[in-house]
Amino acid sequence: MTDKRIGEECGVFAIYDPDGDCARSTYYGLYALQHRGQESCGIAVNKNRDISHYKDMGLVNDVFNEEILDKLEGTMAVGHVRYSTTGESMRENAQPLVLRYSKGNIAIAHNGNLVNKDRLMKELSVTGAIFQTTTDTEMIAYTIAKERLSTGSIEEAVNKTIDHLVGAFSMIVMSPQKLIAVRDPWGFRPLCMGRKGKAIIFASETCALDSIGAEFERELLPGEIVVVKGGEVRSITDHVNKHPHTMCIFEYLYFARPDSVIEGQSAHDSRMLAGKYLAQEYPVDADVVVGVPDSGLSAAMGYAEESGIPYGIGFVKNKYIGRTFIQPSQSMRENSVRIKLNVLKSTVEGKRVVMVDDSIVRGTTSKRIVNLLRKSGAKEVHVRSSAPPFMWPCYFGTDVPSRDQLVACNYSMEGIRELIGADSLGFLSIGALKKIIPDANCGYCDGCFSGKYPVEIE
Amino acid sequence: MTDKRIGEECGVFAIYDPDGDCARSTYYGLYALQHRGQESCGIAVNKNRDISHYKDMGLVNDVFNEEILDKLEGTMAVGHVRYSTTGESMRENAQPLVLRYSKGNIAIAHNGNLVNKDRLMKELSVTGAIFQTTTDTEMIAYTIAKERLSTGSIEEAVNKTIDHLVGAFSMIVMSPQKLIAVRDPWGFRPLCMGRKGKAIIFASETCALDSIGAEFERELLPGEIVVVKGGEVRSITDHVNKHPHTMCIFEYLYFARPDSVIEGQSAHDSRMLAGKYLAQEYPVDADVVVGVPDSGLSAAMGYAEESGIPYGIGFVKNKYIGRTFIQPSQSMRENSVRIKLNVLKSTVEGKRVVMVDDSIVRGTTSKRIVNLLRKSGAKEVHVRSSAPPFMWPCYFGTDVPSRDQLVACNYSMEGIRELIGADSLGFLSIGALKKIIPDANCGYCDGCFSGKYPVEIE
Amino acid sequence: MTDKRIGEECGVFAIYDPDGDCARSTYYGLYALQHRGQESCGIAVNKNRDISHYKDMGLVNDVFNEEILDKLEGTMAVGHVRYSTTGESMRENAQPLVLRYSKGNIAIAHNGNLVNKDRLMKELSVTGAIFQTTTDTEMIAYTIAKERLSTGSIEEAVNKTIDHLVGAFSMIVMSPQKLIAVRDPWGFRPLCMGRKGKAIIFASETCALDSIGAEFERELLPGEIVVVKGGEVRSITDHVNKHPHTMCIFEYLYFARPDSVIEGQSAHDSRMLAGKYLAQEYPVDADVVVGVPDSGLSAAMGYAEESGIPYGIGFVKNKYIGRTFIQPSQSMRENSVRIKLNVLKSTVEGKRVVMVDDSIVRGTTSKRIVNLLRKSGAKEVHVRSSAPPFMWPCYFGTDVPSRDQLVACNYSMEGIRELIGADSLGFLSIGALKKIIPDANCGYCDGCFSGKYPVEIE
Amino acid sequence: MTDKRIGEECGVFAIYDPDGDCARSTYYGLYALQHRGQESCGIAVNKNRDISHYKDMGLVNDVFNEEILDKLEGTMAVGHVRYSTTGESMRENAQPLVLRYSKGNIAIAHNGNLVNKDRLMKELSVTGAIFQTTTDTEMIAYTIAKERLSTGSIEEAVNKTIDHLVGAFSMIVMSPQKLIAVRDPWGFRPLCMGRKGKAIIFASETCALDSIGAEFERELLPGEIVVVKGGEVRSITDHVNKHPHTMCIFEYLYFARPDSVIEGQSAHDSRMLAGKYLAQEYPVDADVVVGVPDSGLSAAMGYAEESGIPYGIGFVKNKYIGRTFIQPSQSMRENSVRIKLNVLKSTVEGKRVVMVDDSIVRGTTSKRIVNLLRKSGAKEVHVRSSAPPFMWPCYFGTDVPSRDQLVACNYSMEGIRELIGADSLGFLSIGALKKIIPDANCGYCDGCFSGKYPVEIE
Repeated sequence: MTDKRIGEECGVFAIYDPDGDCARSTYYGLYALQHRGQESCGIAVNKNRDISHYKDMGLVNDVFNEEILDKLEGTMAVGHVRYSTTGESMRENAQPLVLRYSKGNIAIAHNGNLVNKDRLMKELSVTGAIFQTTTDTEMIAYTIAKERLSTGSIEEAVNKTIDHLVGAFSMIVMSPQKLIAVRDPWGFRPLCMGRKGKAIIFASETCALDSIGAEFERELLPGEIVVVKGGEVRSITDHVNKHPHTMCIFEYLYFARPDSVIEGQSAHDSRMLAGKYLAQEYPVDADVVVGVPDSGLSAAMGYAEESGIPYGIGFVKNKYIGRTFIQPSQSMRENSVRIKLNVLKSTVEGKRVVMVDDSIVRGTTSKRIVNLLRKSGAKEVHVRSSAPPFMWPCYFGTDVPSRDQLVACNYSMEGIRELIGADSLGFLSIGALKKIIPDANCGYCDGCFSGKYPVEIE
Repeated sequence: MTDKRIGEECGVFAIYDPDGDCARSTYYGLYALQHRGQESCGIAVNKNRDISHYKDMGLVNDVFNEEILDKLEGTMAVGHVRYSTTGESMRENAQPLVLRYSKGNIAIAHNGNLVNKDRLMKELSVTGAIFQTTTDTEMIAYTIAKERLSTGSIEEAVNKTIDHLVGAFSMIVMSPQKLIAVRDPWGFRPLCMGRKGKAIIFASETCALDSIGAEFERELLPGEIVVVKGGEVRSITDHVNKHPHTMCIFEYLYFARPDSVIEGQSAHDSRMLAGKYLAQEYPVDADVVVGVPDSGLSAAMGYAEESGIPYGIGFVKNKYIGRTFIQPSQSMRENSVRIKLNVLKSTVEGKRVVMVDDSIVRGTTSKRIVNLLRKSGAKEVHVRSSAPPFMWPCYFGTDVPSRDQLVACNYSMEGIRELIGADSLGFLSIGALKKIIPDANCGYCDGCFSGKYPVEIE
Repeated sequence: MTDKRIGEECGVFAIYDPDGDCARSTYYGLYALQHRGQESCGIAVNKNRDISHYKDMGLVNDVFNEEILDKLEGTMAVGHVRYSTTGESMRENAQPLVLRYSKGNIAIAHNGNLVNKDRLMKELSVTGAIFQTTTDTEMIAYTIAKERLSTGSIEEAVNKTIDHLVGAFSMIVMSPQKLIAVRDPWGFRPLCMGRKGKAIIFASETCALDSIGAEFERELLPGEIVVVKGGEVRSITDHVNKHPHTMCIFEYLYFARPDSVIEGQSAHDSRMLAGKYLAQEYPVDADVVVGVPDSGLSAAMGYAEESGIPYGIGFVKNKYIGRTFIQPSQSMRENSVRIKLNVLKSTVEGKRVVMVDDSIVRGTTSKRIVNLLRKSGAKEVHVRSSAPPFMWPCYFGTDVPSRDQLVACNYSMEGIRELIGADSLGFLSIGALKKIIPDANCGYCDGCFSGKYPVEIE
Repeated sequence: MTDKRIGEECGVFAIYDPDGDCARSTYYGLYALQHRGQESCGIAVNKNRDISHYKDMGLVNDVFNEEILDKLEGTMAVGHVRYSTTGESMRENAQPLVLRYSKGNIAIAHNGNLVNKDRLMKELSVTGAIFQTTTDTEMIAYTIAKERLSTGSIEEAVNKTIDHLVGAFSMIVMSPQKLIAVRDPWGFRPLCMGRKGKAIIFASETCALDSIGAEFERELLPGEIVVVKGGEVRSITDHVNKHPHTMCIFEYLYFARPDSVIEGQSAHDSRMLAGKYLAQEYPVDADVVVGVPDSGLSAAMGYAEESGIPYGIGFVKNKYIGRTFIQPSQSMRENSVRIKLNVLKSTVEGKRVVMVDDSIVRGTTSKRIVNLLRKSGAKEVHVRSSAPPFMWPCYFGTDVPSRDQLVACNYSMEGIRELIGADSLGFLSIGALKKIIPDANCGYCDGCFSGKYPVEIE
C-alpha cells in the first residue's frame, strides 16, 4: 500500500563471528530488515569484552557510512531497526540500549511489546529507578540487572527475567562474553538462527540471513534462550512449552518480507493463500485482478489464480524515499495519493477490476485508490482485503490505531463499501486465517481481528 | 533489475500557473521523473520577470525542503533531474542552467545529447567562449544568446538555434516573460504538454502530469517550439516534419515509467508485447515465468500470458535507497546481488523457471541472478531479454557502455548463455521492435541494437 | 593560549520566566558560557509540567536553530554546555539529563565532579542500577530518585542527596513544578542567581546574566539549595557552613570569562593582580610585556603596570573556529602553532620581551611560542606564568593531566626554562594566590598546585 | 567591533610546490585570510595539467575536511575566500572560477572590483556572452579567453586583458602549465609573493605566508604580472608605473590582519599611529583608554601611549562563531550587542573612558556600546574613531554603504555625538592619513573619506 498503515516496533539482528566483519554483516542484516522499522537504527559491537556502539535517527543507509562501520570492530555484534511511531521522534529511544551495570557492559535489542510494562515500571520506580527512554527495553534491562545480583550468570538472570515479562519480546542481549537470544513463551514475534562458516547469526526474519549468505538453521522455540559463548551454543528451555505458541498472524499477512519463511511457512505463500480463500469467499465477475503494492501483490496473484480472472499490474509505486517528503498543500490534497501511487491505465481502462489490498484500516486510502481506478477508466471496482477487518487494538508490538479510528468499528460492511466507493467489498474471514499457514508448525494470535488475546490484558 | 545498467541523462518539467504554487508542483513533477536521473536536481522560478533557483546533488526529496520551496515563489517554473554518471559528480552540471545574457535572465533545462557538441564547442571557443560546466546545455545556451543578438525575440533565437543542433534535445527555456518548450526535429526524447485549470505544464513523461493531477493534452511534435506567454500558447513549426520521427525505442523498454504513455503508446503495454513476442520467438517448456524487478515485470507478464506458463513473483527487491550504500567487502562480493534482490524460494523451488529481464548489458548481473535462482532450487533457468542485444553505442542521451564492455559484442549467443549459466537464452529480435509499439504514431531509433542511426555520427 | 590546555567539565544556566521565551534566553546564556564546554550542549524546557528537550554534540550556535528553539516552549528551562574531553565523544553524555522516575519527569544539569563516584556507582549497582552514560550526573539522578521515595518533596530529596555526594557540584534540577539550584557545601564551582523583571535566572557565571540583560542578585552559598516555584523563591540551608568555602582558584586565573565576577571578585582583576605579583616576584629588565591570548592578556597588563615596562600587543590569534580543523601533516608540524597564533613582529623585533601566559602545563606550547618570538626578532624572551606550576591532579571537575605529563613534575625550574628555550622563567608563587582575590568573600582550593585538597581523596 | 561593518570582497592564495601538499598549504593560507571573506571558499589544484577543484558556502574549516583535501592532489593550487555580502548568497559566485576555453582549463581567483564592469558586460553581451555568476571575475575570464585567441600565450592574454580593466584587481590565474599572479596598475589591493624551499607562494597578505612558514619575498608591483612555470619565475612589467600607486588606506586601518605587513608597513603599527595622531588631534582628560575589539585595540594602545592615559581591557568579545547565530527577538533587541560584546566593569566603573573604535559607519553600534559603558558605570565616554568619517562610496572592492546610511553624511559632528550619546567625539583627520603609513613605499586611496578617487568613476 501507499502509506504506512500498521507499523511494527522493530527488527533485531545479531552475529557472533570470530573471523568476520561483524558490524558490516549486521549492517546488511539490518538493511534487509529495514521494512520492520525506519525511525532509527543502531549497531553495538563487542571487541575483547568491550562494547562500543553507534545509533541515530534514520535509515540504515543514511545513518552508517564506511568510516563509522570501520570503527565498529568486534567479534560479536547486535543491531536494531526501530519503527517510526507518530509524535516526536526520540533519539534516546534508538537501540541497542547499551549500558553498564554491576557486572560490566551489556547491549540489548528488543522487538515486541510488554503487556505489563506499566506495572513493571511502577515496581521499578518504587525502588528508585530512573528512566531515560520511553521504551520497555529499559525496563527489561533493569530487571536483568536486578536479577543478575542474585544469580550466577547473565543467562540465568535473563532466564529469571522472563518470569517478570508478559507480552511479546524477541530480543538479543550481548554481554562481555556472550550473545544471548531470547523469545517470549508465546512466540509472538519471529526470531530465527542461522550459520555461515563459524559465524552464528540471529535475526527477526530469514531474509536477513539470506542477505548475508547465511544458512537458516532453525527458529528459536517460544520461551527459549540460546546462549553463544566462544562459538559454543547452549539452549535454556525452562520457559519452553509453558504457553501455546501464538505467532502474530499479521506477520504473515503484512509485516514480514514476502521472501521470509516463518515457522516453516513462506510469507508470500500465506498471502497467495489468503488471496485464494478470499476468491472463494468473495467471488466476483470481473476482467482483471490488481494488487495494491507492495504487500497486496501476492494476495492479488492468489485471487487471480483461484478465480481464473487474469492478473494485471495495476499500479506503479514511486520507489524513491528520501529523508524528507514534503506533503502536498491543501489544494493538492485530493491528489496526494497519486504522487506516490499511479494507475497503469491500460491495465484497468474499461474493465471490471478486482483490487486486492492487504488490509483496510481507516478506509481513507482505499477510498482514494478506488477513486483513482475509476478516474483511470475502471468500469467497476471490487475491493478485497486479504486481512479480516481490524476491530481491536494490538498489545504485542504493532500500532493498530484506536477503535475510533478503525473504519470497521464504526461502519457496517455496507457502510465501508459506500465510504470507499467500491462496487463490492470483501474481507478475508477470521475462520480462513487458520488455512493460510498450512506449513507453519505453530498457532497464531488474531487478537486485532477477533478480540481474543492469548494473555490477559491488564 | 538490481543495479542501474543503462542510464539516461535527464528529465524536465515546467509549469506556467498564474494562481498556483509553481515550485511545489515542479517538486512533485520531478519526484515523478526521479527515475530519469538521481544525481542532481534543481528548480528555477520566475516571479515578475525575476528568476531565482535552487539546485544541488541528490534526490528531489533530499535536496528540497519546505523552507527552500517556500522561497521559490513565482508564476512560472522549470525543473530538472539529472542522471548520475560515473566519475566525479559535478555540482556545476546540475540544472536548470540559470544565466544572464544581453536580454536579461534565462533558465534552461535539457534532456538529451548533441551529436555535434565537439564541433559546436570548437566554434564557440574560437569566438572566445568560456565553459563552466561539461554539459552541452551550456553550448545550447551560448547559441541561443548569440542568435538572440540578431533576432527580435527569444523564441526566434531558439528557432534559429535548432539549425545548429544535431542530436537529441527535449528542453525548456524560461525567459523573463515566456516559457518555451522545444523538441528536436527527430523527436528522440519524449516531451508532452498538459493542463490543469489555468496552468500549462510540460514534462518528459505523462506520469509527471498524473502526479499533479493535470490532464494530458498532447506531445510536442518533433521540431516544434511551444511558447507560453501570459497564458497564451503559440506554436512554431518551422522545424517540424524535417526528419522522420525516431523516438528512442529503449524509452519504451526501459527508461520510461511503465505508467507513462509516449506518443499514444503505454510503456507497460510495450513491455507486455515485448514479452509476448519473446515467447513466440523463444518458447520453452517451463513451470513458471518470473520477471526481474522492476522493469522486467511487465515483459514477464507478457511472456506468461502468451506462453500459458503461470506468472510468479520470483524476487523481492529491497526498496530502501539511502544517500550512501556501503558496498560489500571482497569476501562478501559473491553475495552482493542478494543484498538488494532476494529470491522467493517457494515460487521457484523445484521448478523450470523462465527469467525475463529488460536487457542484458555486461552479463555479470544476469549471471548472479541465474546463480541465485539455482541456489534457491530452480531446476532449470531460461533467460529471456525483452530487449535485443546491445551492440552499438548510443549518441542520443543514454550511456550504453563501450563495445568492449558489452557482452553481446564479445560473445556468441551460446557464449553468453554459458557465461551467465542459463539453460537457454533468448533476446527479442530487432525485427520485433516495430511490433511492440502498435499504438505509437511515430517511428523509432534502434541504433544501439542495429548500429543504424537516424543522423550521421561525426 | 593557543590550544586548550586545561578543560573544565561544564557550564549551567536555568531560567524561570512566566512571560518570556525561556529557551531563547537559555540559548544566549549558554552562548555566553560556551568557553566552559564545547563538546555538546542542550536545553530542556518545562511547559505545564511537561518537559521536552534537545541536545547534541557541537557548539550552541551549531546545535540550535530557530526551528528547534521555537519548539522548545515553556516557562522554565535549564541548559548545559559540556567540555570536550579527549577520547571518543559520547552523545549519551550530553546534558541536561532528562528522565522519568517515580514522581514524574526531571531534568538535571551539572557542573563539577564527584570524588566518591566510584563508591556511589558501586552502591547503586548492588541495588540493580543500570547506567546509560559515563557521567556522575546519572548517579546524582539515581540518588535523588531513591531519596525521593522516602521524602515529601523533590527539594527534600535533593537536600538528602547532598549527604551522599562528596566533591564539586553546581547543578540545576527542574521538576514538573520547580526549578532547583544546588551548590556543593565546599563551593568549588561558581553558581549565581539573577533577576530580570519576573524572571529568575541561575548561571555558572555572571557573564551569562549580562548577556540576557539580567541583574546579578547573589551567589548561592556553598551547600545552599534555592527552590523556585511559581515565582516564589525559597532557600534551604541545612548544608550551609558545613565546610570552609574553597572556590577553585583556577576559575579566577583561567576558566572564567574575564568579565565574570565570582564571589565579588572580578576575574580580570584577579589576573591583573596575578601579573602584578608576578612582576614583584620575578622582575626583569625588558622592553615590552606581551600576553599570550586570550587568557594571558590580563596578567600581562598587570605585569606591565607593576613593572613599568610598556605593554604591547604581541600576538594575533586566528579567531575562526569551524567544526573541523585539519591538523597539519608531519612536515608542517613544527609550524603548527603559527597557524593559529602569529607574532606581531613590529611589537617584539629587536626587543627584550616578557611573555606572560596563564599557565604552563606540558611545556610544548610554550616552547613553540618562545621559538616563534625569537624567529620574529625578539632579543630575549622572559616567560612568566600567572599560575603556579601544576603539580597535582584535580578531582573537582577539571582535567589537569596526569603527573607524568606535567612538566613541573618532571623538570626543575631550570630544566623547564631550558626546555622551553626562555632566557628566564617565573611562576606565580602559591603564596601569592591569596592576594589575587582581595574582593572575594571566600577561601579557595589550590590542590592542583599545592597537593592540599579540602576533602579527602578516596 | 562587534558586528561586521565594512566588508571586503575577497582574499587569494596560490602556491607552486613540486614536492608538497599544495591543497593543504592553500587550506592553511586561506584560513589565515579568513577575515577577508566568510561567505564561501574554494581551492583548485593542478595535477599534470589537469585542474580539479572544490568550493562551497562557509568557512574554510567547515567546507574542507581531510577526505576532500586528500582528493585535491597537484603541484599548483589556487584558493579564494569570499566576503558575505547581504542579500541571497549565491553558491555560483564561489571562487576560484574554473573553466574551459579554447586552450584548455584555467582557474581564476580574484580580489577587487572593476569600475567599468557594466561597460565590460555590455561589450561582452553584444558578442553573445552568457553569465552564470554575478561576479566581475567571470568578465575577466571572458576577456582573457577572447584575448587568448589572438595572442601566443596565456600570460600575453592576461597582459592584454589589463588594458580592458579599470579598478581594483589582485588575482591569480592558473593555466595547465602556469601560475600567474596579477595586480592592477593602481595597486589598490595588496598581493605579495613568498618562498619556502622550492615552493613559490602568492597571497593577499603576509600573514598567510607566515601561517605556512614561508618567507616573504616582495610585493607585486602595481600592474605587474608574475608568471611561474616549472619553478621559473618571470615578470611582465608593461603596465608597471602607468599610474600612481594608490593602496587602499582602509586596508591598514581595518581590513588587513594586524600582523600583516603591506608595502613595508605593519598594519598594527599604522593603527597605533592612527591612535597616536588621534590623541594629538582630539585630546581629552580621562582615566582609561579602551579599544573596541578586535580592530580598535591597536589604535587604543596608540592613543593611550601618546596621551599618557592608562590603557585598559574594556571589553570581552564572545569568540564562538557558529554556522548560524540566532538573532534576538524584538524584546531582547536592545540587549543584542551584549550577547557578543560585554564590558569589563572593573576597568571602566567610575571612570572617564576614552573608547577607541576603528570607524563609525551607521552610528547604531557605537550608540549601543556607549550605552553599555554607561550602564557599567563609566562616568564619561569619549569616542574616538581611528578612521575619518565615511562620506563616499568605495568602488574598489569594499562595501561602504550608500550615503543615506552613512551617519557622517547625514549628521554634523555634534549631531553624531549626540546620536551615539558620547561626551565628546573625534575622528582622525584626513590629513593625518599620510602620517600613519611612514614605512610604506606607496601612495594611497582615501576616496571613501575624501571623495577623491584615483580613477574616474563611470
